[in-house]
Amino acid sequence: MVAGLATGMSIVVPDKKLEDAGINVFVAEVTKVDAEKKKVLVSDGREFNYDKLFLSTGSSSFIPPIEGKELKGVMALRGLPDAEKIKAFIAENNPGKLIFIGAGFITMEIASLLAAARPDAYDITVIELFNRPLPLMLDKDMADPVQEYLEGKGFKILTGDKVEKIVGKEGAVAGVELGSGKKIDADMVFMNVGVRPNIELAKDIGLEMGKFGIKVNKFQETSDPDILAGGDCVEKVNFITRKPTAGRLRGPAVMQGRLAAKRLAGYDIEFPGVLNAGGCQIFDLVVSSTGFTEEEATKEGFETVCATVDSRSKHGMIPGMKPWRIKLVFDKKTEKIIGGQIVSHSVPPVREIDAVSALILGGKTVSDLTTFTNACNPDISAEPSMEPIPVAAEAALQKLKRP
Amino acid sequence: MVAGLATGMSIVVPDKKLEDAGINVFVAEVTKVDAEKKKVLVSDGREFNYDKLFLSTGSSSFIPPIEGKELKGVMALRGLPDAEKIKAFIAENNPGKLIFIGAGFITMEIASLLAAARPDAYDITVIELFNRPLPLMLDKDMADPVQEYLEGKGFKILTGDKVEKIVGKEGAVAGVELGSGKKIDADMVFMNVGVRPNIELAKDIGLEMGKFGIKVNKFQETSDPDILAGGDCVEKVNFITRKPTAGRLRGPAVMQGRLAAKRLAGYDIEFPGVLNAGGCQIFDLVVSSTGFTEEEATKEGFETVCATVDSRSKHGMIPGMKPWRIKLVFDKKTEKIIGGQIVSHSVPPVREIDAVSALILGGKTVSDLTTFTNACNPDISAEPSMEPIPVAAEAALQKLKRP
Repeated sequence: MVAGLATGMSIVVPDKKLEDAGINVFVAEVTKVDAEKKKVLVSDGREFNYDKLFLSTGSSSFIPPIEGKELKGVMALRGLPDAEKIKAFIAENNPGKLIFIGAGFITMEIASLLAAARPDAYDITVIELFNRPLPLMLDKDMADPVQEYLEGKGFKILTGDKVEKIVGKEGAVAGVELGSGKKIDADMVFMNVGVRPNIELAKDIGLEMGKFGIKVNKFQETSDPDILAGGDCVEKVNFITRKPTAGRLRGPAVMQGRLAAKRLAGYDIEFPGVLNAGGCQIFDLVVSSTGFTEEEATKEGFETVCATVDSRSKHGMIPGMKPWRIKLVFDKKTEKIIGGQIVSHSVPPVREIDAVSALILGGKTVSDLTTFTNACNPDISAEPSMEPIPVAAEAALQKLKRP
Repeated sequence: MVAGLATGMSIVVPDKKLEDAGINVFVAEVTKVDAEKKKVLVSDGREFNYDKLFLSTGSSSFIPPIEGKELKGVMALRGLPDAEKIKAFIAENNPGKLIFIGAGFITMEIASLLAAARPDAYDITVIELFNRPLPLMLDKDMADPVQEYLEGKGFKILTGDKVEKIVGKEGAVAGVELGSGKKIDADMVFMNVGVRPNIELAKDIGLEMGKFGIKVNKFQETSDPDILAGGDCVEKVNFITRKPTAGRLRGPAVMQGRLAAKRLAGYDIEFPGVLNAGGCQIFDLVVSSTGFTEEEATKEGFETVCATVDSRSKHGMIPGMKPWRIKLVFDKKTEKIIGGQIVSHSVPPVREIDAVSALILGGKTVSDLTTFTNACNPDISAEPSMEPIPVAAEAALQKLKRP
C-alpha cells in the first residue's frame, strides 16, 4: 500500500477517476508519521498503514518580516483562498492605487490581469529590488522591452528600490516607504516575494535535509528508503552545474511526482535535474526562459558568450506578424548552450523555449545551434533566414571566434 | 570573389542592404559555367569570374505525364507567377468545382485558403493515393482527425484512389477519371505532386551527382572544391539513418545556404542531416511533424514503439483551450526518439515540434522524454500532468517495458 501526503494549492477531493483506479482519497490533516511502524496519523484520530509513503507537502508564500505586513489590504497570492480574498477585498474597498512588491512573474501576471479586467480603474506601481522586471527570467537587455511595454500600459515601475515599510491608517494600508526615501500612497499592496518549502513534517520524521528542502536521490527517495518525496518541498539538482537548488516551479514538481510513481511501479528512470524553464503571459506579451540568464551564469562562475536578436512570429508577408526577441547564453569554455530567453507578442505564444531546453539537455554547442532547423512555414514561423535560434547562435558564434 | 547562382521562387533584385554589404546582384540567365577557367557566362554575353561559386538552382514542380495535363484550368503552385495565374483564372472563369490531386501540405493549404477566402463558393474534392491526407507528415491515426475536420469544412476526400486521366471539353478541364472508375466533374484541377531538382547546370559542369541531386560533402562542397551548392538542388543525408535523401524543404535549404556562407568565411561547421521537420496551417488547424512517421520508420527497417495521446493547448481552467494530438515514434532497439507528429487547433500554433526535433538531435530515449519538462504556464501550456511530450513518452514506455 502506497500513501501519499499532499498539501497545497489545490484541494484534492474524492474523484470517480481516482476511485476507478483504486486510489482512495482522504482529506485530513496529518499530525504525525511513525516511520518505524510505517503509520500515518491524522487529526481525527484515524491511522493509515503504508508500505511506501510519498510526501508532496509543497511550499508556502513567504512574507518577509516587514513593518505593516499585517495591515488590511496587504495581499499575497498562492492558492484559490488567496484569490477569493483579493476578489472580496476589491469588491468591498474599491481600491484605486495598487502597489506590487517584486516584479516576479506571478506578481506581474496578477497586475496585468487586474488591469485588463478593469482598464483605467487602477493606478499600478511595481517596486523591484533588481534593475529590471522579471529579474530571475530575463537579463536587462531582454527585460527592457518588457518594462517599456508595461510603462506603455500605464504601469509605474521603480527598479533598484526596496519597500522599507508599509504605512497604515486605521489598520488599513495607506502607502509604502522605500529605501530611496520615496513615499507612495496605496489602497492595496501585493507581496509575492518568494516561497519556502513545507518541511516540518519531514523534519519531524527525521528525514535528511538539504539547504533547499528534503534531500532525495535521483529516484525521489529520501533518506528513509520507504519514503519518497517530490515537488516544492524537496531540494533539486541543477541540470547544468549539478549543484543543489530550490527549483520551485510547477513543471519539475509534477515531473517529480510522476517519476516517483514510476519508481514505485519498478522503473529506474532518473530525474535529470532542473533547468528552471518557465513562462508567463503579461497582457499579450509572452515571456519565457530556460537555463541560466547571463547574470546567473556569471554568478555561477561561467564565462559566457551571449547574443540577443530580434525576429518575428511569422513570415513578413503574412498578416498578424508579431515581433520576437531572443537571447541565447553559451558557456565560453565548452561552447555549450546553457540558457535562453524569449520575449514575444504572439498569443497564444510560440513555445520555442522548449526547443532551447531540449538543446541544453542534448549538450549542444553554438555550432550545432547555427544549424538547428525548425519546422518552418510562413504561418507558423519567421522566414528561415530569420529563425531566432540559428540566427542568435550565428551572432554568438561570431563573438566566440572568427576564422 | 564569390559568385552565387540562384533560381527559383523569389526573384532576387538589387537591394540597398545587399549593396551596402558589398554584394552585387545581377539578374540574368546563366548559359554556361566554365569550371576550368572559373567563369560564369550569362545570356546577354557578359562573363563573371569567380574564386568560389555557390549553386542554389532549386527545384521545379513535377507534373506527371498524365493525359489532359495541358488542358486550360490545370494548375500547379510553386512560385509567385503560378499564384498570379491561379488568381487570373479564377477571376476569368469563376470555377465552382475544384479538384486537388494529392493531399500534400501545399495543396491542402491552397485548398483551405481558397475555401476560406470565398466560403461556399467552391465544391472541393481531394484525391489522394495514400489512405489519408498529409501522408508524408502524418500516420493514419494522426491524419484521421484532420480528414474529419476537412470533411466538416465540406471537403470531399477520396483516399486510396488515383487520377488516371483529366478529361477536357473544348480545351478546358471538364473532370477527372479515377483508377476506381469514378468520374468527377471539375472546372479547375490542382496538381502539386512533387518537385524535381534543377540540376542541368550542375550536370553540364560535370559535378558528381547523387540519386536525389548534386552530391555535396558535409560542408556543402561539390566534387569541384571551388563550387559549393545547397538547397533543393542537392542531395542531403537523413540525420537518423545517414542515408541519402531528397529533403526538399525550405528549412534545410536556407540552412545549407547559411552553412556554405560560413564555410566560405572559414568556419568548419557540419550539416547535421535533415529531419524533414515541417508544418502547415489548414484553416485553423496546425499540423507539424519531424523525423520519421511510423510508416516511414517501418519502411526504413526500424521496429518501432509509438504512442498517440490527446492533450490541450492551455490549462483546462483557462478560456480558449484547444485540443492537441501528439504522436511520438521510438526505435524499439535503441529506445531513441526518431519522430513526432502534432495536430493542434491553436492559432498561432504552438511549436512544440521543434522541441521534438531537438530531442531527436540530442539522441534522447523514451525514458529521457518522460522527464522532459516544458516551460509551463496555464496560459501557454496544458497542466504539466497533460504535457504532450512526457505523457506520450510515458505511454510509449509502458508499451516498451513493464518492470
